[in-house]
Amino acid sequence: MSKIKITALLLLAATINIPLTVQSQEHPNLIMTKPGVEKVRKNLGQVPLFDASVESVKKQVDAEISLGIDTPIPKDFSGGYTHQRHKQNFIIAQKSGALYQILEDEKYAKYIKDMLFQYEGMYKDLPAHPQKRSYARGKLFWQCLNDSNWLVYMSQAYDAIYETLSEQERDKLENNLFRPFADYISIENPQFYNRVHNHSTWGNAAVGMIALVMDDKELLDRALYGIEDDGLEIGGLDNDGGFIKVEGQKAGFLANLEDPFSPDGYYTEGPYYQRYAMYPFLIFGLAMKNVKPEMKVFEHKDNVLLKGVNALLNLSDADGEFFPLNDGQKGMSYYTASLVTAVDIAYQYGNKNPQLLSIAEKQNQVLLNEAGLAVAMGVRDGKAQAFAKKSINLSDGPDGKQGGVAVLRHGNEDLTLVFKYAAQGLSHGHYDKLSFSLYEKGDEVLQDYGLARFVNIGQKGGGNYLEENKTWAKTTIAHNTLSQNESMHFAGKYAIGSQHHSDLYVYDHSNKDVQVVSATESNAYPGTKMHRTMAVIKNKSFDKPFLLDIMKINAEQKNQYDMPFYYLGQVLSKNFSYDSPNVLKPLGQNNGYQHLYLEGIGKPSTSSTQFAWLGNGKYYTLTSATEGSDELLLTRMGANDPEFNIRREAALMIRRKDSDNTVFASVIEPHGSYSPVSELSVNSNSNIAELKVVHDDVKYTAVTIKDVKGQTSLFLLSNLDASPSTQHKLEVVGKKYSWTGAFHYIE
Amino acid sequence: MSKIKITALLLLAATINIPLTVQSQEHPNLIMTKPGVEKVRKNLGQVPLFDASVESVKKQVDAEISLGIDTPIPKDFSGGYTHQRHKQNFIIAQKSGALYQILEDEKYAKYIKDMLFQYEGMYKDLPAHPQKRSYARGKLFWQCLNDSNWLVYMSQAYDAIYETLSEQERDKLENNLFRPFADYISIENPQFYNRVHNHSTWGNAAVGMIALVMDDKELLDRALYGIEDDGLEIGGLDNDGGFIKVEGQKAGFLANLEDPFSPDGYYTEGPYYQRYAMYPFLIFGLAMKNVKPEMKVFEHKDNVLLKGVNALLNLSDADGEFFPLNDGQKGMSYYTASLVTAVDIAYQYGNKNPQLLSIAEKQNQVLLNEAGLAVAMGVRDGKAQAFAKKSINLSDGPDGKQGGVAVLRHGNEDLTLVFKYAAQGLSHGHYDKLSFSLYEKGDEVLQDYGLARFVNIGQKGGGNYLEENKTWAKTTIAHNTLSQNESMHFAGKYAIGSQHHSDLYVYDHSNKDVQVVSATESNAYPGTKMHRTMAVIKNKSFDKPFLLDIMKINAEQKNQYDMPFYYLGQVLSKNFSYDSPNVLKPLGQNNGYQHLYLEGIGKPSTSSTQFAWLGNGKYYTLTSATEGSDELLLTRMGANDPEFNIRREAALMIRRKDSDNTVFASVIEPHGSYSPVSELSVNSNSNIAELKVVHDDVKYTAVTIKDVKGQTSLFLLSNLDASPSTQHKLEVVGKKYSWTGAFHYIE
Repeated sequence: MSKIKITALLLLAATINIPLTVQSQEHPNLIMTKPGVEKVRKNLGQVPLFDASVESVKKQVDAEISLGIDTPIPKDFSGGYTHQRHKQNFIIAQKSGALYQILEDEKYAKYIKDMLFQYEGMYKDLPAHPQKRSYARGKLFWQCLNDSNWLVYMSQAYDAIYETLSEQERDKLENNLFRPFADYISIENPQFYNRVHNHSTWGNAAVGMIALVMDDKELLDRALYGIEDDGLEIGGLDNDGGFIKVEGQKAGFLANLEDPFSPDGYYTEGPYYQRYAMYPFLIFGLAMKNVKPEMKVFEHKDNVLLKGVNALLNLSDADGEFFPLNDGQKGMSYYTASLVTAVDIAYQYGNKNPQLLSIAEKQNQVLLNEAGLAVAMGVRDGKAQAFAKKSINLSDGPDGKQGGVAVLRHGNEDLTLVFKYAAQGLSHGHYDKLSFSLYEKGDEVLQDYGLARFVNIGQKGGGNYLEENKTWAKTTIAHNTLSQNESMHFAGKYAIGSQHHSDLYVYDHSNKDVQVVSATESNAYPGTKMHRTMAVIKNKSFDKPFLLDIMKINAEQKNQYDMPFYYLGQVLSKNFSYDSPNVLKPLGQNNGYQHLYLEGIGKPSTSSTQFAWLGNGKYYTLTSATEGSDELLLTRMGANDPEFNIRREAALMIRRKDSDNTVFASVIEPHGSYSPVSELSVNSNSNIAELKVVHDDVKYTAVTIKDVKGQTSLFLLSNLDASPSTQHKLEVVGKKYSWTGAFHYIE
Repeated sequence: MSKIKITALLLLAATINIPLTVQSQEHPNLIMTKPGVEKVRKNLGQVPLFDASVESVKKQVDAEISLGIDTPIPKDFSGGYTHQRHKQNFIIAQKSGALYQILEDEKYAKYIKDMLFQYEGMYKDLPAHPQKRSYARGKLFWQCLNDSNWLVYMSQAYDAIYETLSEQERDKLENNLFRPFADYISIENPQFYNRVHNHSTWGNAAVGMIALVMDDKELLDRALYGIEDDGLEIGGLDNDGGFIKVEGQKAGFLANLEDPFSPDGYYTEGPYYQRYAMYPFLIFGLAMKNVKPEMKVFEHKDNVLLKGVNALLNLSDADGEFFPLNDGQKGMSYYTASLVTAVDIAYQYGNKNPQLLSIAEKQNQVLLNEAGLAVAMGVRDGKAQAFAKKSINLSDGPDGKQGGVAVLRHGNEDLTLVFKYAAQGLSHGHYDKLSFSLYEKGDEVLQDYGLARFVNIGQKGGGNYLEENKTWAKTTIAHNTLSQNESMHFAGKYAIGSQHHSDLYVYDHSNKDVQVVSATESNAYPGTKMHRTMAVIKNKSFDKPFLLDIMKINAEQKNQYDMPFYYLGQVLSKNFSYDSPNVLKPLGQNNGYQHLYLEGIGKPSTSSTQFAWLGNGKYYTLTSATEGSDELLLTRMGANDPEFNIRREAALMIRRKDSDNTVFASVIEPHGSYSPVSELSVNSNSNIAELKVVHDDVKYTAVTIKDVKGQTSLFLLSNLDASPSTQHKLEVVGKKYSWTGAFHYIE
């Protein structure tokens, strides 16, 4: 569709303005309902967590009301005043609506009404936002995304006070504010609205929410199914380098529900964006359930929305912080407001899982509606059970066939492995095939760097993505995985990466003391096949579980391989010698290497290289089977970073040159602890004497781990046949072994 | 005394072995007493905190008893097994003794008896410890210090089971173990024993404790008054570079009580070592009170021991962690065991300060004696009050006339300044005259680096002081104070530094919103006088209190001055431009400069240089009045540190060349906050538009602070007359001001 056609359609839509259903509805009916509100009012003062939530919201809203309403002329990026103010406005208005319904105090309705009319007075003359960086500028905010946030929240506020307004008032708001607003973020910005992307989900939900309040079928259809003829060309890119339009791609809320979620509820952009997208998904899902229950949005794709909440909660460490896969800002956790919504809705409309109540207890906050009331009553009645996070394998892709993310946990999250063998993850994906991160409880042992962005911190590029997100955070060398010839997976090209995904080889958590995940990747470096197997093992002669990591490489030609391990903490010891350069230079020129300083370079002095560090009061040792010609690089981030956008953190990197088929085998071994209060150092040395690849051919790989007392354990892996029923035989170091299934561990 | 004479004396002492008092005493009488034990037994099961402490100790001791007793041949440094085992032995034996008295279960007595006889069997043939690094090697441990720890604890264990042993058994233990042990750490190691030093305090207490149990007057005299003729030469040095013998110096416990404590209870080595020394001071003080009350040890020097507990608790941040002044390991806090002892004893034998009970509550543990019982009963009875830390000025030096340490606090530890204008601090002192550190609650804003040592972590130099403690941690440039011509205060010479101290100019916390401390230093750099004034100010147009820092320098010749600010966090913005070198080189050759990389070098672009960072979710801005010719250096630690002994942390350094008389005036301004969970950025920009030195001559210095709304505040300082009653007049920027006292602030 051409630009002129869009404008024509817009004018037409603005002119017609006919309610398309016949019966008028009662309000509120979106997130709160009349009977829900009745129930809430009846229980006031009797449900501590709910009462506390009302009290806390009331305090916040009252404070804002006393400051007066400000709807400034839009000007700033996300770190600045006008952005923050408009954001605060819609958050407080939504809350004020809930308070009005619950407490029946007119001042809350008046606050919303006054604010809405201030927006009504300014909106029609408002040009696109003066900051031009976005591929889809909003009006109140620098991107349509934030304008959509506004409408999702304001729809709820409007719904809450709907019946207090006269018909004329409603007409005025709907004609001058809400419908033009909905049109602007949809018809006028199809490149934003008509995609499968978290941005579009917000846009769709925004249009859908106001459609339900206004009872406008045309808008509702647009929300659910997108714009039929959007005039967009195939292959255009957004600011993050993501495709705007892909051949054959549907649009609208249902398509967004269909495509990015796997059948297991994993959201392909990763947990940080899932957390962000869950709010519009669930809140519009709930609104649909209340207003159009016959559409069965929650039941869509075998309850994928509610499964998504479970998947998301499982993608967090022991402190509730989400694993920073892809573009994820560290520190985001299930304590965030959108997860309060998610947990409460999942409890009420799922199977009343009592484990969700313990998360709600930690959140110490509930939604101010019937779902929040149900959760608070469950907590009050002592129904809460601990949310026991187990090992889990989450498929990626709409059909669950595009790789996935596996989380292996031992004990009570004593050791957690996050192994990523997923699809690209849309525009927020990183070039990190078969990468992993490792946690002990809530502490990172080997980190995933996350993103290079300071969300909402204006001093850092307006709070937007920094250049270093592309030059560092997304690169392969920024991750705990294989870099070949100092290049990136898929040559760092989104167009290629988004065509491929890794493949699961085996996932087995049936024996808690030998849990294994294994996957292959053949497209990241054409001509090179990577097969990485990771086993979380608890051997009785070790005080803690450890991680065995076997990366097997088959290549058509000789390459240089780099295997970095991004440890966090203070280096304690290593069993190799190295040169420490007097001046620090960047390790390379591009693909992320330009951001690494070389702090040391050495050679293995034995075939089992060891490197130990102390992090968060716990000891860790990496033991790796190295070759005499390997190089051991001590690297630190921060080169070519004049603005200090990158944290100064470090890695040990094993470099193997001129190799085609080879194996990197390592153990990451947590052990002991140190307390600066008692100054007691417990079990500070590795328990491993030797790590050896004792067999490696096309069909089998075998690794032995000898502990310091001389006990040897053996890990056997079938490289080509992962069937659980196949019988294998192998002679290793003169001894014959037979087993069934892809792997076998002998303690 | 020659070596031969010492040995002769030793033989004599071993031969005589006559109890010097006539009456036999009842046991226990040291830390527990018969009536005390009676009272404890009577209250068992009725005092929750005490019962929990018994239960927790019982669990620990039972676990050790089930493991059996091991007294290995000494071999290791502090990180190794034999060290840890012997240490664990004396700790568990002491606890087992307390359990025996309280629970009357014979197994606890038997455990101690068996262990003591194992030691008795091995001790007489034991040579000095095989590790030769210490200036005073122990037998069980690598230094006499740890052997003394052993005796302090074992004396208590012995006292607890004294009455269960036959006279023959006691004689055997005393003749073969305890007396030779006491002689070894005293007469055979006078260089360890006969000093004023925390090492000697432990030695004295050890000898004194066993003397009281054995009722041996000769040993007790040796404990209290030292060895009269120790044969030591004046000027010998210990491992830390401290003097072993100083002309005219007394020795023994009472001298150690006299000299290192100021009348305010400040311990000249700093809080980390005070925490360590408090245990022998208090535990022997308590033993003396129980056995020799007439000696009035607690009352010595106007109750300095109990004052010391108060001083120490006040030298901690909001999380209870001690300020790492001098050689202090970060993370040590009032949760450590010796502070449980200190708090309980201070409560019981001080004035029953109910604020101590809240510390005991946090410690969640009490001593297993009458003092612990009293504390637990106080807690049970709801007497606890919050320990309200206020601003405090602690003098240093035996007479309180050798400078001091001031702590200015605003609000509930919302901002805490630690300003050090003390004496050298014996061998653990740093070359950091007029240095400071700054805290917001428990978070460091501008850090004191602390020490370069990993206590008890064997991989790091056996857990001992690292070379970098001398080459980095002690240096002047490692601290937030003035470095002149890239040299150290007192040329880094202990012999010179220990002759001098800074002098207080003014201390005034009477107005909580304008608290001031000011001190001068004339000896650190001969010919240069530094006068630093620090004011914690809460101005009503700022959301948080800030620190105003005025360093006035008068020099006889032109010098280069470096003023570093060791911030912790992520750089956000700065209003000057700088070059970022592509390769990082060390900033200098020695005096600590060799450990700094230069990450950036620039020039001020305005007269008010600003530099902002984000640390622990809070924003900070440094605003400094700079001159056009100043250099602004961005430095990072870690150069010439191949073993990674130094943390990779950063500073902004202002360098002023070719100057004699000059002023560095800065404001360190905490503001706002950032949450990675809500992603809300509050008040992220500095409120300061301009900082200006508007007047500076011999008599007066005046600084203005203009905020972003144009409001200007003025700080006036009299440089030569600190009398609170002197009237001053000054014309500043055409306006006349008059005030009384050393300073005046006009908002």
